[in-house]
Amino acid sequence: MIVVLSGGVGAARFLEGLAAVVAPERITAVVNTGDDFILHGLHIAPDLDIVTCTLAGVIDRAQGWGIAGDTTECLQWLGRLGAPTWFTLGDRDLALHIYRTARMREGATLSMVADEIRRSLGVAVKIVPMSDDPAPTHILTDHGELHFEEYFVRERCQPAIRGVRLHAAGPVRPAPDLLALLTSAEAIIIAPSNPVVSVGPILAIPGVRAAIAATAAPVVAISPIVGGAAIKGPAVPMMTAAGMTPTALGVAEAYADLIDGIVIDTIDAELAPAIDALGIKPLITDTIMRGLPEKMALARATLELTGLAIATT
Amino acid sequence: MIVVLSGGVGAARFLEGLAAVVAPERITAVVNTGDDFILHGLHIAPDLDIVTCTLAGVIDRAQGWGIAGDTTECLQWLGRLGAPTWFTLGDRDLALHIYRTARMREGATLSMVADEIRRSLGVAVKIVPMSDDPAPTHILTDHGELHFEEYFVRERCQPAIRGVRLHAAGPVRPAPDLLALLTSAEAIIIAPSNPVVSVGPILAIPGVRAAIAATAAPVVAISPIVGGAAIKGPAVPMMTAAGMTPTALGVAEAYADLIDGIVIDTIDAELAPAIDALGIKPLITDTIMRGLPEKMALARATLELTGLAIATT
Repeated sequence: MIVVLSGGVGAARFLEGLAAVVAPERITAVVNTGDDFILHGLHIAPDLDIVTCTLAGVIDRAQGWGIAGDTTECLQWLGRLGAPTWFTLGDRDLALHIYRTARMREGATLSMVADEIRRSLGVAVKIVPMSDDPAPTHILTDHGELHFEEYFVRERCQPAIRGVRLHAAGPVRPAPDLLALLTSAEAIIIAPSNPVVSVGPILAIPGVRAAIAATAAPVVAISPIVGGAAIKGPAVPMMTAAGMTPTALGVAEAYADLIDGIVIDTIDAELAPAIDALGIKPLITDTIMRGLPEKMALARATLELTGLAIATT
Repeated sequence: MIVVLSGGVGAARFLEGLAAVVAPERITAVVNTGDDFILHGLHIAPDLDIVTCTLAGVIDRAQGWGIAGDTTECLQWLGRLGAPTWFTLGDRDLALHIYRTARMREGATLSMVADEIRRSLGVAVKIVPMSDDPAPTHILTDHGELHFEEYFVRERCQPAIRGVRLHAAGPVRPAPDLLALLTSAEAIIIAPSNPVVSVGPILAIPGVRAAIAATAAPVVAISPIVGGAAIKGPAVPMMTAAGMTPTALGVAEAYADLIDGIVIDTIDAELAPAIDALGIKPLITDTIMRGLPEKMALARATLELTGLAIATT
């Protein structure tokens, strides 16, 4: 298994490319659930849904989230009833939240439901939530402590960040078989996702970091920071708040105990010697994924960096 | 207060007429919850929603249920995920179920939520569920014991009825203040609803039948059976299964201990003497409610039968 540690949009796009160059059955995405929250009594799992719907080919490609062609009739009526409407829930989209919530009330775990949904939508890549325990990421801001989605969507990243609190609801156990999956993986890839709030919650689960550090298999990352800026989302202020340098070099440093190599963008070529000096092999290429050809090229470059002799299509 | 014991479509149409001829603030609808059930983890309350949405002017008038102009995107996607789709849930409609379920999980009672929803939708008639306890109506059929909605919607009333089991989940307490409401009512009207599965569950609540029988206020019914047939729904086989005669006379007999008068359709004029012989005053008029004028005329006739000097508009 090629195991990919995944956040939302960037990881989903990378996985789309990867699944187009190697057999998708050979890939497992381990997905951040730190963004999950309960709204309108429904279990919302933003990164799981983005990864699943992207790989199912039903994602709204322009946004990177939500289902293509979706409507918001239900949300508008929730608003008429006085419920909060700051988090967009499409009508099609709601089916995933309703189904997940109902199944979990029946006793199913998040892992079981994630697997049911990806199968129903015809996704061959295995999709595993990082944990079946609640693992909310809180952002400490000058407007108080907010859930990640409150900070990111409701407050539109406006409050100044003072810090990040992972696993804010208490201890988080790895999903069933997650540690075994990491230990037996033929390669581990850290997707181009926010190191603090997307990959951070996965690495913070007890046993995960040690399992990755101990594996003999290649471990590589793709930098989500290009030219000192995030492709998408609040990675720069969050990395800064977390004491990281918000550059591709900073990403390499954050993963220094874990990775053998890192894919960085052509624009960051000058950082290669410093990354090399960390004992991490840099691979310089174009990392902006505009369409499927770029996604596939990035996947091929990443596989090349692993050094695995993987036949790509 | 004029208290109306209500089922779904027929009662909602009658209430619409009543609210057009007397001040709606003077009307309280006590609504059957025997049809309520949990589907997709959501609390569905068919009769409450039909009454509320009809009085709010947002009902799909052709169907008598559901919200006008609604779509079924969410339901179609629930189907893709393998969830049952036999019960139509519109996207707008879902907002009511989601809101109700979320509020009840937060600790609100069904009564509280029914009141919140009718206020949000601008309904001046008070809407009270008959009970805050689960009170499912089961239909005993030659295909086994089914929830009312399974029999009515999923099985399209096809299985032969052997009997009806009200309050199938156990003892049902009256909604808060329901008995006081009945005792203090200036008039009680039994809407043109199915006597077995719409009005029956209300009357079966301990204390309700006694409170109505004891009141000095006028109590009148409108027959939902016209010419030996139901305007809508499976009243005839159900009345037969319940040992009632499926005619306007049978309706009068079923309520004989409760009512002072009954409104019957012109087509049933020949039944008037037999009803009169029960000590119940019949009022003969057109009872088919095609549009608002017919609804208002039926409301005026019903108020006339109560003998109350109510100034109608």
